[in-house]
Amino acid sequence: MTEMESALKYAQDHRPRFQDELIEFLKIPSISTLSEHKKDMQDAAKWVSAQLDDFGFENVSIIPTEKHPVVYGEHLSAGEGAPTVLFYGHYDVQPVDPLDEWENDPFDPVVKGENMYARGASDMKGQVAAHLKAVESMIKTSGLPINLKYMIEGEEEIGSPNLEKFLGDNKDLLSCDFCLNGDSGILGPEIPALTYSLRGLAYFEIRLQGAKSDLHSGIFGGAIDNPANVLARLIAGMKDEKGRILLPGFYDNVRPITDEDRVATQSMPDEWWLEQTGARAIFGEEGYTSSERAAARPTLDVNGILSGFTGEGPKTVLPARAMAKVSTRLVPDQRPEEVESSMRTYLEEHMPPTVTWELEMLSECLPGIVERDSSLVIAAKNSLKAVWDLEPVFVRQGGSVPVVGSIKDVLGVDSLIMGFGLPDDNLHAPNEKFHLPNYFRGIETFIRFSYELRR
Amino acid sequence: MTEMESALKYAQDHRPRFQDELIEFLKIPSISTLSEHKKDMQDAAKWVSAQLDDFGFENVSIIPTEKHPVVYGEHLSAGEGAPTVLFYGHYDVQPVDPLDEWENDPFDPVVKGENMYARGASDMKGQVAAHLKAVESMIKTSGLPINLKYMIEGEEEIGSPNLEKFLGDNKDLLSCDFCLNGDSGILGPEIPALTYSLRGLAYFEIRLQGAKSDLHSGIFGGAIDNPANVLARLIAGMKDEKGRILLPGFYDNVRPITDEDRVATQSMPDEWWLEQTGARAIFGEEGYTSSERAAARPTLDVNGILSGFTGEGPKTVLPARAMAKVSTRLVPDQRPEEVESSMRTYLEEHMPPTVTWELEMLSECLPGIVERDSSLVIAAKNSLKAVWDLEPVFVRQGGSVPVVGSIKDVLGVDSLIMGFGLPDDNLHAPNEKFHLPNYFRGIETFIRFSYELRR
Repeated sequence: MTEMESALKYAQDHRPRFQDELIEFLKIPSISTLSEHKKDMQDAAKWVSAQLDDFGFENVSIIPTEKHPVVYGEHLSAGEGAPTVLFYGHYDVQPVDPLDEWENDPFDPVVKGENMYARGASDMKGQVAAHLKAVESMIKTSGLPINLKYMIEGEEEIGSPNLEKFLGDNKDLLSCDFCLNGDSGILGPEIPALTYSLRGLAYFEIRLQGAKSDLHSGIFGGAIDNPANVLARLIAGMKDEKGRILLPGFYDNVRPITDEDRVATQSMPDEWWLEQTGARAIFGEEGYTSSERAAARPTLDVNGILSGFTGEGPKTVLPARAMAKVSTRLVPDQRPEEVESSMRTYLEEHMPPTVTWELEMLSECLPGIVERDSSLVIAAKNSLKAVWDLEPVFVRQGGSVPVVGSIKDVLGVDSLIMGFGLPDDNLHAPNEKFHLPNYFRGIETFIRFSYELRR
Repeated sequence: MTEMESALKYAQDHRPRFQDELIEFLKIPSISTLSEHKKDMQDAAKWVSAQLDDFGFENVSIIPTEKHPVVYGEHLSAGEGAPTVLFYGHYDVQPVDPLDEWENDPFDPVVKGENMYARGASDMKGQVAAHLKAVESMIKTSGLPINLKYMIEGEEEIGSPNLEKFLGDNKDLLSCDFCLNGDSGILGPEIPALTYSLRGLAYFEIRLQGAKSDLHSGIFGGAIDNPANVLARLIAGMKDEKGRILLPGFYDNVRPITDEDRVATQSMPDEWWLEQTGARAIFGEEGYTSSERAAARPTLDVNGILSGFTGEGPKTVLPARAMAKVSTRLVPDQRPEEVESSMRTYLEEHMPPTVTWELEMLSECLPGIVERDSSLVIAAKNSLKAVWDLEPVFVRQGGSVPVVGSIKDVLGVDSLIMGFGLPDDNLHAPNEKFHLPNYFRGIETFIRFSYELRR
């Protein structure tokens, strides 16, 4: 039995415990955006650092930032001939509302069929646990074939506001040959995949104020402008009915999709998008497939809107205020600050004199792209192929991984993005789940990938 | 001292107690739209009926409806030669949110300067109490010069859904020469006024659904339509930037404003509208004054809108659902059911195939208009003039009083609308208030009006 085979056997022998430990991790309600979960954030960080301690990592520490700490640890026993890999993950999760749409308590994980249901199961405690259990399987058998550094942050779901500073402050500590980022997924239980492109993000909050307080719509309606109507008109003007964005200069730096991109990249049929979402009809820019619209083209969405009375029954109020959260997903070579400026120009040009307004960029992320023919990508491809017995497909991913851009900027290394979530995992939504067979195949893939890097 | 003078003296002598009794009434949180206030609704009804009992009214009863009961009582001692007046009021109040914008507990009334601050102070417990105290002042001195019936309902703020049936079921009991409706106001502390026209209402809730549950905006954004963006586009298309409504056929039955209307009706300058509201700039249909836009022209306002994540910070969700409450104020001779049909046609014509939708009319009310030269209006004018020592002005009011239309339909009588609220009373908004000098002048006016009717 080779070293790799003994690690793979260890992983198979300990599946029940590996599943129990994932449940332990998922029970911690580490919601980074809500201040009442501060202690839970600490508990989740401690859970990760205790694992690293247990595996004999050195310099294991929970390093404070301005908000939530970063867990660090290193295992450099493979020595100078072996590559040094920085594993990136996050221990924070999204909020759980609307809570009444969950079929179980989001922090009391339930296994139904092949899936484990819990907030953070797929995004991304399941991915972090899969890598931890791969590391354990190697260390407890023949030792790690590579040098490994761990950096698990607690602010990914709020846009990683302190990570860039953390990277800059700890450049030497974090030096590595490349970053392995597990915050990702594959296309289906039997469709292994590798992400080579990510969209970026510019996320805004727009706040309008009309009258100084709410008014009676009978007494004042018609003579005093309504900030909710104004906001609706502004949002309507940001995008046409086909999804083409109308902010001035928005498409100036969008890199066109090449024929080579189209051939290399997996595309799912329209039926798949409808099945995954339960939507009634397909939607999007003309001249592109659904997969291209969702990953290779920028978009603009209302993430939240609120004004006036939203309880039960009628209330005849003319609201004083209206708020919308509007985000744009970006593709190479767009930059969030350019989109912010475009949004500001649009609002300045279209805002009526009847309201005061504020625009705030709450979160931002550069889009990212890596080369499909690098040795790193080839090692990843081989390990996926060995586990699934299928050629993995190349994927452009529609989501954003803020840290990928920051790591390239600050540490000067590329990120390989390899995770095992599925498109219907209900990320950021009620009833988030993780496909358990993928958890175990993920562990096996991470083991194989470590050995592939030593070839 | 005439009979009227002795009633007026009684009213002056008992002002402190009359103020304390208003406070008692205001302390009852009778919010009709929220089911948790069911008992408070009963308590408010009992408070009114106890007053009538105390004054020697007969047949005093709290008559159940499908939701909140109606208080009835009659005092017919003036006999056949005297007119019979049906006094209409409501004991229910609006919800109090946003609660954090109140400077005092909305149900713990506070007097500051000349005003009493509490939910319902002006709309309309203050008006009901003013009439009750006028009645007491007459009964406890020389007796009532007119026959009086009381009908105080508990569903005005939710659109009086059961009142029309109540009127039909009790047609004989409620028979009268005309209705006196106190749910109204004057134009300023020193500007007595009489309302001769009211706007109607058609209040809708529009609900859209896209995907079956909330989606990750990175994974699906661009390929799956967003019901919040769709809703914004629909709302934007309902009204142009100048306030002109674009629903098909919306203006077909709008009665034009005549030159005579323009001369007879009080109009406030733009500065007044800006001061009252704190709005930055005037707004509305071209060719009309602000006063005309707010009272003699129909309008369309978003009263509430909600979709997606509206908490603190960013959440990258593509919402599954979006909801808006949108209401139109109507003028003669528009009808709510025609506007509902126009709204439905508009939505059918503009709804994309990507969403399912529902339209519900939550509340409706016919617009109303009464003749400015009737003997009834002249009696009211004389009593206002005697109290204020000024000619009252004629007013078209922008708000809706659903019962006015129903009473004309079912009982066959007109309503005289005379109340003593002020335009800056913050109706339906935080820090609702009632001007106390108007409370006492209101009592005096109601006394004089009763005697004017016997001339």
